[in-house]
Amino acid sequence: MQLKINSPLDMHLHLRQDNMLKVVAPLSSKSFAGALVMPNTLPPVTTKEQVVAYKREITEAVDSDNFTSYMTLFFKNDYSYKFLEDIKDDILSIKLYPDGATTNSEGGVASFDIESLRETLEAMSDLNIPLNIHGETTGFVMDREAEFVPIYEQLATAFPNLKIIMEHITTKESAMALDRHKNLYATITLHHLFITLDDVAGGMLQPHLFCKPIAKRPEDREALLDLALNAHPKVMFGSDSAPHPKDKKEAPGCAAGVFTAPIALPLLAQLFEKHNKLENLQKFISDNAVKIYNIKPIDKEITLIKQSYTIPSKYNDIVPFMSNKRVEWKFK
Amino acid sequence: MQLKINSPLDMHLHLRQDNMLKVVAPLSSKSFAGALVMPNTLPPVTTKEQVVAYKREITEAVDSDNFTSYMTLFFKNDYSYKFLEDIKDDILSIKLYPDGATTNSEGGVASFDIESLRETLEAMSDLNIPLNIHGETTGFVMDREAEFVPIYEQLATAFPNLKIIMEHITTKESAMALDRHKNLYATITLHHLFITLDDVAGGMLQPHLFCKPIAKRPEDREALLDLALNAHPKVMFGSDSAPHPKDKKEAPGCAAGVFTAPIALPLLAQLFEKHNKLENLQKFISDNAVKIYNIKPIDKEITLIKQSYTIPSKYNDIVPFMSNKRVEWKFK
Repeated sequence: MQLKINSPLDMHLHLRQDNMLKVVAPLSSKSFAGALVMPNTLPPVTTKEQVVAYKREITEAVDSDNFTSYMTLFFKNDYSYKFLEDIKDDILSIKLYPDGATTNSEGGVASFDIESLRETLEAMSDLNIPLNIHGETTGFVMDREAEFVPIYEQLATAFPNLKIIMEHITTKESAMALDRHKNLYATITLHHLFITLDDVAGGMLQPHLFCKPIAKRPEDREALLDLALNAHPKVMFGSDSAPHPKDKKEAPGCAAGVFTAPIALPLLAQLFEKHNKLENLQKFISDNAVKIYNIKPIDKEITLIKQSYTIPSKYNDIVPFMSNKRVEWKFK
Repeated sequence: MQLKINSPLDMHLHLRQDNMLKVVAPLSSKSFAGALVMPNTLPPVTTKEQVVAYKREITEAVDSDNFTSYMTLFFKNDYSYKFLEDIKDDILSIKLYPDGATTNSEGGVASFDIESLRETLEAMSDLNIPLNIHGETTGFVMDREAEFVPIYEQLATAFPNLKIIMEHITTKESAMALDRHKNLYATITLHHLFITLDDVAGGMLQPHLFCKPIAKRPEDREALLDLALNAHPKVMFGSDSAPHPKDKKEAPGCAAGVFTAPIALPLLAQLFEKHNKLENLQKFISDNAVKIYNIKPIDKEITLIKQSYTIPSKYNDIVPFMSNKRVEWKFK
């Protein structure tokens, strides 16, 4: 049995820098036609020069005819219309981090007062640049995303022509907000379709499943599955694949992030097949993103075959999601 | 400034076995006049011979004139009246674990059908042997204790003369159940008075704060603080101090447990002082337990002095709660 996927896209990806990038970028380019590359590098990507240099670094690490890196900029509320107009063709969107919400998010937005964001967000709206948001408050870990939903809604209402993508949603509250505003969209990761907090901390503690936003409750996972498996037209796959070296994940003070890029497609195929929804995978993994972002990815057909194999224990020094577990589909 | 505590008691303690016991038992006997010793050893303590042998092992590790180990038995629903009558003088209470709920709880109770427990619990009630319960279902990790509250209540109603101690409570639901049944009591740990899930997984992941039941929400911690700081007469201190070697805590699949025995008194003094409730510490740490269990602990006065010091990074190979942090009280 074979499964062909046209131009799969990963609309939320961390490629890191330097040696880590050289390891992980080819693993994404093997599976995907393109990916939206997050800008929370050190330092964050905030200038045209940095965008160009970062894109070049990625291009040199992969077969660039075979993989498109869609670039993002790290949101700052002092980006002017002129600055954005000048950078527009080099980026696909701009990613907003609340200050300190996750890995390398320092210097992000400290206040969601609409007026302090208005000039930049109106310019983005006028220039048709979508806004990606890591939507978490600084509240209690299980409430942070639900508490952020009113902020998503205020922004969606204040800037009705700005496309706002709620990144890596993990809660039923975010899922429900999707249909209340025509300009709200969402990405969903692989791992949040598979795990809840029970998998992270319900048995023994599992650092390789620790991520931000943290995996939530069973009813939250059900809401995400409902969106993904039915390929809700405002929802796209975004892995949030976030590699950290094994020793950083397994030490006290474990870094947040789950590495899924190399095994995302086989595991998605397994999940969609299990729920008799394989016919919707193409939309979730590519077609919806093409429409939402109005992009034309390269033609790239990925073939999976129904054949069980064991996910590696490591890719270099990075432990992937479900390492050493069996999966029912593999790349041809 | 000095603080004198008379005969402090730790009414929920894991002393383990062999070399680990030799390390941790003296640390408890330094601080406490006595402790209720949990029976979830390998194998669990289920016979009189085991109780006697385990007590001897503890006695040999500490200055036994200076520390009383109150022994417990691992609950089995086939303990007969005769068996219990015979063992009564060697134990203070019997500890019930749901099967698989925590470290070494295999072989615990698989069903809470009242009839399957009736013979043993009625015998315990008649013989005035209290029942300690680890109250968690196998549900979602944040709900397990709240889901268990109806089971506590069924047992309290079915066996109205049986003293039932809800061990290491972590939720407002358990706190609220206390006053609904005259025969329900509770222990509260040190760490659940200090931390919430935010401390375990809200920033980076902290394996040394991972325990069962897992730390819950801020409003749960508030409910526990309200009980402890006001020395609710049905509530006792039970550390649930649960040592694991550093390498077991810091590896993937981290074992559950927080090691607090050697620093519990100084940190409780600091907490009660901060809330202007120092006058209630004696009740929480000793007097309430004396009344609930009807015991006469040895006379042992522990003096703390108001002097800042740094909690050690390790005791042998065990990392304590708040290692390397400053605390405002120390043993004289």
